[in-house]
Amino acid sequence: MDDVWDLYREDLKRVENQIRADLKSDVPLIDTISTYLFTSGGKRFRPLLLILTSQLAGYRGDVQTELASVIELIHTATLLHDDVIDEANIRRGNKTARMLWGNQASILVGDYLYTRAQCKIVSLRNHEINEAVAEATRRMTRGELSQLAYNGDVQITEEDYLEIIGNKTAALIAAACRIGAILGECPDNNKEGIESYGWNVGIAFQLADDTLDYVADTAKLGKSIGKDLQEGKITLPLLCLLQRCSQDEVHKIGKIIGLSDFTPENLDFILKLMHHYGVIEYSFDMARGYVEKAKKSLMLFKDSMSLQALFAVADYVVDREL
Amino acid sequence: MDDVWDLYREDLKRVENQIRADLKSDVPLIDTISTYLFTSGGKRFRPLLLILTSQLAGYRGDVQTELASVIELIHTATLLHDDVIDEANIRRGNKTARMLWGNQASILVGDYLYTRAQCKIVSLRNHEINEAVAEATRRMTRGELSQLAYNGDVQITEEDYLEIIGNKTAALIAAACRIGAILGECPDNNKEGIESYGWNVGIAFQLADDTLDYVADTAKLGKSIGKDLQEGKITLPLLCLLQRCSQDEVHKIGKIIGLSDFTPENLDFILKLMHHYGVIEYSFDMARGYVEKAKKSLMLFKDSMSLQALFAVADYVVDREL
Repeated sequence: MDDVWDLYREDLKRVENQIRADLKSDVPLIDTISTYLFTSGGKRFRPLLLILTSQLAGYRGDVQTELASVIELIHTATLLHDDVIDEANIRRGNKTARMLWGNQASILVGDYLYTRAQCKIVSLRNHEINEAVAEATRRMTRGELSQLAYNGDVQITEEDYLEIIGNKTAALIAAACRIGAILGECPDNNKEGIESYGWNVGIAFQLADDTLDYVADTAKLGKSIGKDLQEGKITLPLLCLLQRCSQDEVHKIGKIIGLSDFTPENLDFILKLMHHYGVIEYSFDMARGYVEKAKKSLMLFKDSMSLQALFAVADYVVDREL
Repeated sequence: MDDVWDLYREDLKRVENQIRADLKSDVPLIDTISTYLFTSGGKRFRPLLLILTSQLAGYRGDVQTELASVIELIHTATLLHDDVIDEANIRRGNKTARMLWGNQASILVGDYLYTRAQCKIVSLRNHEINEAVAEATRRMTRGELSQLAYNGDVQITEEDYLEIIGNKTAALIAAACRIGAILGECPDNNKEGIESYGWNVGIAFQLADDTLDYVADTAKLGKSIGKDLQEGKITLPLLCLLQRCSQDEVHKIGKIIGLSDFTPENLDFILKLMHHYGVIEYSFDMARGYVEKAKKSLMLFKDSMSLQALFAVADYVVDREL
C-alpha cells in the first residue's frame, strides 16, 4: 500500500491544491475551520479511489482532480455533523471542530462544505455524476438516521447493521468509484463492476473500523477504544457477541450499553467476553470476505497498474493498523 | 392576498400531495418527523412564488409542482438546522422538532430533506435549475455563517446586515422565482426581472420579519417577541437604534445584547428607545422600498392574473400581521 501512496503522490497533491482552491472564502469563520479540518490529517482514501477507478476505466482527462476534491468536501461535511451528533471530542488525534468552535459553527460549516461541493458538481454539467452524488448523499443521511434510531437497541440484526453501514459508509465510496467509471465512459457492466468494488470495499472498511474500535492501540487509533459501545452504537463485534453469549451475559451487556457513567471495568468485561467468544476474528473474517468480493468485481478488467493498486487498497482497508 | 390564496388553492394542494409523496420513507423516524413538520403550518410562500412566476413566464406544463415541493423541502431543512443553532423551542406556535426528538434527529432529518430534494432536482436533468438551486443553498449557509460570526457584534453595519439577509433569505426566494422563469423559457432579461423580483421580495420579507420580532402580537407571531435581541442577533431595528441613540444609550444596549439572564425589563428598555427614535417606522419603510423595487422588476411583463398576484404577494410580505 505504501507503494500506491508513493505512485499517486502527485495526483493527490493536485487534489490537495484543488481542495484549498475550492474552500477559498471571504467569510473568515469558513476559512479558519476548513483550513483546520483539511490540514489535520485524513488519508484522502475516497479521492485516491476516484483517481484509480478513472484510470482503470481508461479516462485520460483531468476533471478527476476536481471531482476527487468534491468527494472529500462531502466526506468532511458528514464528519462535522457526525461529531456533533456523537458529541465527539477527538478525531484523528486532534480536537474536533465542535470543541474549538462549537456545535453551531460545526453544523453550518458542514452545510457549507456540502453546498459548496454541490455547486462544483453541477457546474460540470454531467447528469450521471449529479445523480450518483445525490443518491449517495441521500443514502448517507438515511444510514445515519437508521443508526440513530437503532441506538442502544439490542434487537438490531446483522442485516439491519449491514444496511446501515452500506448507506452511511459504502454509498459514498461506491459513488467515488462510479464517478471514475463514468469519466472513463466504460460500458455499463464495467461501470457496475467498479461500483460494486467500491461498495464492497466500503463495507469492509466500516467492518474493520467497527472492529478496531474494540482492539486498536489507542495512540494509533487517535481516540480511546470502546467509543461505539459507550455511545450505544451496536456494531458487528457486539452483535456477534450478543448472539454467541449466554442469556445471563446478554442481560449484563444490555445494562452496560450506552451507560452514562460507563467505566473502564465495563469495557474490560465486554472485551474479555469478546475474546472468549472469538467475535473479533469473526468480524475481521467477514471484512476480508467483502475484500474478496470487491476484488472479484474487477474480474472484467485486464491487469494494469491501477488494477493492482485497487487490489492493494482493498487489502489495506482490513489489514491497516488503524 | 386572500384572493391569491383562493385562486391558487388547487395548485398548492397538488404541491402538498407532492411533498407527502417525496417524503415517503421506510425509516420511521424520517416519516414521523417530516409528517410533524409538514402538517404544523407554513404558508408555502416559496412554492406559491414558483407557481406564479412559472405562469407569468408562460409555462404551461406541470413540473412546477415537483419543483415547488423541492424548494419547500430545502426551506424546511434549513429551519430544522436553524432551530438547533438558535436553540429555539417554539416555531409557528408549536414545539420545535428538536424539543420533541432532540438535536441529533433534527440535524440528520435536515440533512435528509436536503439530500432528498437534491435527488429530485437532478433527476429532472435541467442544468440551469441545478445551478440555481446549488448556488442558492450555498448562499444560504454562507449567510447563516456570517450571521453567526457577527453574533453580538455591535460593529455590524447596515451593509453587512443586508448581505446576510440577502444570502440567508432572499437567495432561495429568488431561486424559486428564477426556476419559474427557467420553466417558462423566457428571454434572459425577463428571467433577470423575475429573479430580481424574488430577491427584493426576499429582502422585504426578512426586514419585515426582523421588525415584527420587536412589535408583533406574541399570540399571532407564534413565539415571544425580542427573540433576536436575546440571541444576540443584531437586525435592522437595533442597528438603526444604535446609530440614532446617544453614546450612553449605546453603552447600555451593548450590555443587554445576548445577556444570558435577559429580563422583560431589558426588552422594555430597548422597546421604549425604539419607539422614541422611530426605528420601527424606518425599518418598515425600508421594507416597503424593497417591495416597490420588486414590483418595478416586473415592468417588462404585460398585465395578467399572475402579475397581479405577484404584486399582491409583494405587498403582503410587509403588511401581513405576522
